[in-house]
Amino acid sequence: MEAYEIREVDEEFEGVVRTERERPTPGPGEALVRMEAGALNYRDVAIASTDFSYPGEELPMIPLSDGAGEVVELGAGVDRFDEGDRVATAFFPDWVDGPLTPGDNRRSPGGNMDGTLAEYVSYPAEGLVELPDYLSSEEAGSLTCAAVTAWTALVEHGELTAGERVLCLGTGGVSTFALQFATAQGAETIVTSSSDAKLERARELGADRTLNYEETPDWGEAVQEMTESGVDHVIEIGGQGTLERSIRATGPDGEVHLIGVLTGISGEVDPAPILNTPLSVRGVSVGSRGAFERMLAAMESEGIRPEIDRTFGFDEAREAYRYVRDGAHQGKVAITFD
Amino acid sequence: MEAYEIREVDEEFEGVVRTERERPTPGPGEALVRMEAGALNYRDVAIASTDFSYPGEELPMIPLSDGAGEVVELGAGVDRFDEGDRVATAFFPDWVDGPLTPGDNRRSPGGNMDGTLAEYVSYPAEGLVELPDYLSSEEAGSLTCAAVTAWTALVEHGELTAGERVLCLGTGGVSTFALQFATAQGAETIVTSSSDAKLERARELGADRTLNYEETPDWGEAVQEMTESGVDHVIEIGGQGTLERSIRATGPDGEVHLIGVLTGISGEVDPAPILNTPLSVRGVSVGSRGAFERMLAAMESEGIRPEIDRTFGFDEAREAYRYVRDGAHQGKVAITFD
Amino acid sequence: MEAYEIREVDEEFEGVVRTERERPTPGPGEALVRMEAGALNYRDVAIASTDFSYPGEELPMIPLSDGAGEVVELGAGVDRFDEGDRVATAFFPDWVDGPLTPGDNRRSPGGNMDGTLAEYVSYPAEGLVELPDYLSSEEAGSLTCAAVTAWTALVEHGELTAGERVLCLGTGGVSTFALQFATAQGAETIVTSSSDAKLERARELGADRTLNYEETPDWGEAVQEMTESGVDHVIEIGGQGTLERSIRATGPDGEVHLIGVLTGISGEVDPAPILNTPLSVRGVSVGSRGAFERMLAAMESEGIRPEIDRTFGFDEAREAYRYVRDGAHQGKVAITFD
Amino acid sequence: MEAYEIREVDEEFEGVVRTERERPTPGPGEALVRMEAGALNYRDVAIASTDFSYPGEELPMIPLSDGAGEVVELGAGVDRFDEGDRVATAFFPDWVDGPLTPGDNRRSPGGNMDGTLAEYVSYPAEGLVELPDYLSSEEAGSLTCAAVTAWTALVEHGELTAGERVLCLGTGGVSTFALQFATAQGAETIVTSSSDAKLERARELGADRTLNYEETPDWGEAVQEMTESGVDHVIEIGGQGTLERSIRATGPDGEVHLIGVLTGISGEVDPAPILNTPLSVRGVSVGSRGAFERMLAAMESEGIRPEIDRTFGFDEAREAYRYVRDGAHQGKVAITFD
Repeated sequence: MEAYEIREVDEEFEGVVRTERERPTPGPGEALVRMEAGALNYRDVAIASTDFSYPGEELPMIPLSDGAGEVVELGAGVDRFDEGDRVATAFFPDWVDGPLTPGDNRRSPGGNMDGTLAEYVSYPAEGLVELPDYLSSEEAGSLTCAAVTAWTALVEHGELTAGERVLCLGTGGVSTFALQFATAQGAETIVTSSSDAKLERARELGADRTLNYEETPDWGEAVQEMTESGVDHVIEIGGQGTLERSIRATGPDGEVHLIGVLTGISGEVDPAPILNTPLSVRGVSVGSRGAFERMLAAMESEGIRPEIDRTFGFDEAREAYRYVRDGAHQGKVAITFD
Repeated sequence: MEAYEIREVDEEFEGVVRTERERPTPGPGEALVRMEAGALNYRDVAIASTDFSYPGEELPMIPLSDGAGEVVELGAGVDRFDEGDRVATAFFPDWVDGPLTPGDNRRSPGGNMDGTLAEYVSYPAEGLVELPDYLSSEEAGSLTCAAVTAWTALVEHGELTAGERVLCLGTGGVSTFALQFATAQGAETIVTSSSDAKLERARELGADRTLNYEETPDWGEAVQEMTESGVDHVIEIGGQGTLERSIRATGPDGEVHLIGVLTGISGEVDPAPILNTPLSVRGVSVGSRGAFERMLAAMESEGIRPEIDRTFGFDEAREAYRYVRDGAHQGKVAITFD
Repeated sequence: MEAYEIREVDEEFEGVVRTERERPTPGPGEALVRMEAGALNYRDVAIASTDFSYPGEELPMIPLSDGAGEVVELGAGVDRFDEGDRVATAFFPDWVDGPLTPGDNRRSPGGNMDGTLAEYVSYPAEGLVELPDYLSSEEAGSLTCAAVTAWTALVEHGELTAGERVLCLGTGGVSTFALQFATAQGAETIVTSSSDAKLERARELGADRTLNYEETPDWGEAVQEMTESGVDHVIEIGGQGTLERSIRATGPDGEVHLIGVLTGISGEVDPAPILNTPLSVRGVSVGSRGAFERMLAAMESEGIRPEIDRTFGFDEAREAYRYVRDGAHQGKVAITFD
Repeated sequence: MEAYEIREVDEEFEGVVRTERERPTPGPGEALVRMEAGALNYRDVAIASTDFSYPGEELPMIPLSDGAGEVVELGAGVDRFDEGDRVATAFFPDWVDGPLTPGDNRRSPGGNMDGTLAEYVSYPAEGLVELPDYLSSEEAGSLTCAAVTAWTALVEHGELTAGERVLCLGTGGVSTFALQFATAQGAETIVTSSSDAKLERARELGADRTLNYEETPDWGEAVQEMTESGVDHVIEIGGQGTLERSIRATGPDGEVHLIGVLTGISGEVDPAPILNTPLSVRGVSVGSRGAFERMLAAMESEGIRPEIDRTFGFDEAREAYRYVRDGAHQGKVAITFD
């Protein structure tokens, strides 16, 4: 079968190489999935092009965590699926539900096990979710990491309710899903970007207010003022010195959801304002399969579709990597596999 | 000032009498409110016309719990409000927030203290909420009991999330607010009624599915089937033998929110199905002032307006009582005070 | 290997027959456990001797849900355990953690799949928990159903805190574990029984107050009075007309945890008091593997040991059944397998 | 009456001056309390001796937040208490229960309103809690700030359960209450100190493990190792560079409760480890009156008494300040008023 491998790390993704591999046979507890689409996250860019290294990572490795396809063969002992079922991969195939425990050993596709950028993937059946019909493969293949992260932060941890206020930093994948989920749950949303065009699109997706952070560099203070007492949730996806402003934007009992280990939460933070407000800063590590399933139920109920910025063909994988690295996209960047 | 008193209980509300009372002077901790509108709940009908008696009730008493108006005078020690503020009454003026405790002594206007059906009401300032501008007095005056009950059930207790399924029994005040709040939080909603016209209106208000319970008397089973595994929440407002069907409609870990002590949860219930599913049946007792305030923030954020079926003038109070008793309304029945 | 089968249902357990079966071979995802001890629950008595029938039950079937032993062989694809690990069976082997979903198909040993009363059991590896060293096999083999039920009710659902008040009905397995867990979390505990000797033992296990329900038949009212405002939790294990008294004993925001589908929650219940207080009645259906693991951590931290009333040998299984049926025990009745 | 005033800030507390003031008359909504005992917190030391300034602070001001006494006179409109009731002051007299809102205006005795170091205090009746009989005035007068902070962190926010692991930094007031509450709820506790004698006393109070941080400077790593996967809660009371080690000591889904704005959380923090684990860092701001009342119920149920290191007489207030500043105490430092 056709697949990509990361063979070496380099800044131009020359180490991401298209290759032939033997089509895998599903082992006990696994399902063989014919992949139809996948998507890129900053994590994937960092793994392929920076010195970021996943715990337990070994090259060569098939990249990407996100993917959707069709079950075509079942390994021994699998009764969760039938052949023909449409499925997507969960980010942590061993984390079924409930709190993350040390026992969930945190293998993750495209991180420390083979990922989804291949024609066929043999995946732990416990780590697959069944897809609703209304989502295309391209849409379903872009949920694994970013959408589940946004859902886990706001709903599973954050217990978001209607009327609360959510600040989404930027217009990347996680922030855009967060905007859509917050809108679906009746929250008031504020989105930041340096691009007025992206802010316009964010308003179409439900943003109640937008802020151009180049025009308003002190957006933390600006959000504090426009909300009178600060927001209840911040989707903090990292970046140069943003965390202090995020904390500034947050009100009493609010939560700053720290996301995106790889893009770099740069700079250090003074904890005093955490105490003064008081608020909490919480690290979010994607989420469980159960969270993924509850999110799909919510998406189907509300008719939410992922915002796909651009779709690349299977033979354009390197271009897709470079496009995500350059950071000009809004929402998700997908790859189709036909 | 003008006011109504319940002097005697009778089926035709002849004991609800318009009268003159001295305009009250706000005591320490109280605010004097010039009332602009109020609304009726079944509770008010039961108090005035049946042998239902509120704990601590003493006649004559000014009726009604719901009301909105303007603060016109402040008693000693009040700094929560300024004169001119628009406010509504909380159902339990002593229950500020957090869990209900025996210390919240459960006095309630129109139940065991004078209510809102008067030109002026001197009310504990801690038991008033400030109103958002977008609500008319008529709208704001119909929230105290029914809206806060629906919000408390679904959001404060029920921790409703997008994608969950909510069954609202009937189209009265609580059920209609529940439909609106569930819709605002991204839930999938099912409404029952015996009137196709009301079901049509429910769909306009956001109901995803509707069921005419005369056409489908076994609606518990029908809901179980249409949702495959049962709903997550039922707004159970009582009635002949509904509770068993509500339980039947509910899925694992679901909640039946029991509302409406006064309309009568008639018949007894076999607890076995509670265990078999398993689910919970929870009594809801309106809610705290904090819940009222959080609900107002959500309503304002989503632009939710109460569904007012009909508005009566101050001089038509008895007609309003009879209209609610006859039960043909959808949403709320208001009284304006000018 | 040696095993028991339920071949027929009869009141004297003559249908529970000792037999030879072929030692099972662990399939994919399974672990072979050499059983060392098990325990009986009322459920097991009902399955073997009454017309109670488990959904999907087929005879002959090896009985019992509770059991502990040693992993002696691993099926394909199992990496959760090593040979030699001491384990116990989870009641629902497919329910890992989080809320119960329709997808957790609710097979359960001794209910609708072969149980633990055999020398060897091949069990889904995902449905086994590793045991702390301090528990004997006899102790560890008596946790699966009753202990996890008590833990789930009070801690996972009930979010019990120090200072809350817990009423435990009777001194059977679930109630005794509930007493121990409530004591460990700093709650104030009340235990009922008709036996002063058992109440004396309950006080040794931590009960703060005890009530002989034959001397105080109106114990619901008595508990309401002695606590001033009612308890926060009731462990309601069923019985003739107890539920109304349990509800009477409960305070505002309290929870009645309904347990014991099989012993019969007899009689019907008037829902009005649920609304008046208000409180909730919640069905409890044992719990997840995650709940079992968190319970074991708590037990180890506090040094909690199951209260074993009596232990029978493998050849005395029918006597054990009759002993549990007769209901004179306190805590658990175990069977050892050597 | 006799009272102390802070007139000037100086390092030796010469600005804390004993004086005569007119005995206050309770205004509407207030109760006059004859104070019997109070206690000092680092906050009080910082207010009197450093450039720390409370928002809204104005000198001269009667110092201290903690205090207990007897209600001797009721202002207009007060029905929560009777004369003769024993009460303690809540830290935020306007925060009744539920989440902290901007509306709770955060006046606090000894911070921006007159405090408890006086023979008589007229206090908002909504901000007083009734005391259980078993506590002496000295004990009850040392709960307002430190005990409610520890309870709020672990129980109200942290939802501590039996079997969870709690790391308490040091042996001051908050940490010692945290140790006692965690022990009462069945948690496994670890305490750090530089004094073996204090660690010995901590073990008597329930600490399961202790660590001398001078002997083990890398205690974050040591705790991570001794617990295998990190603790569930840290009571982080501040100090030079402790926060990074606290984060290191914490496991997945764990919480670092940041306490003690005034002692200084010095140094900045790298947020990356928050994401990698993932965990949350939460600021704690004492707690509500409702939290205080629930804590008292738990204390009474478990017979918990504050650990009083030393008690000073009313005329020794400056010595008490200096003693707390020097930091050699364990638990609380009290002042009696007779």
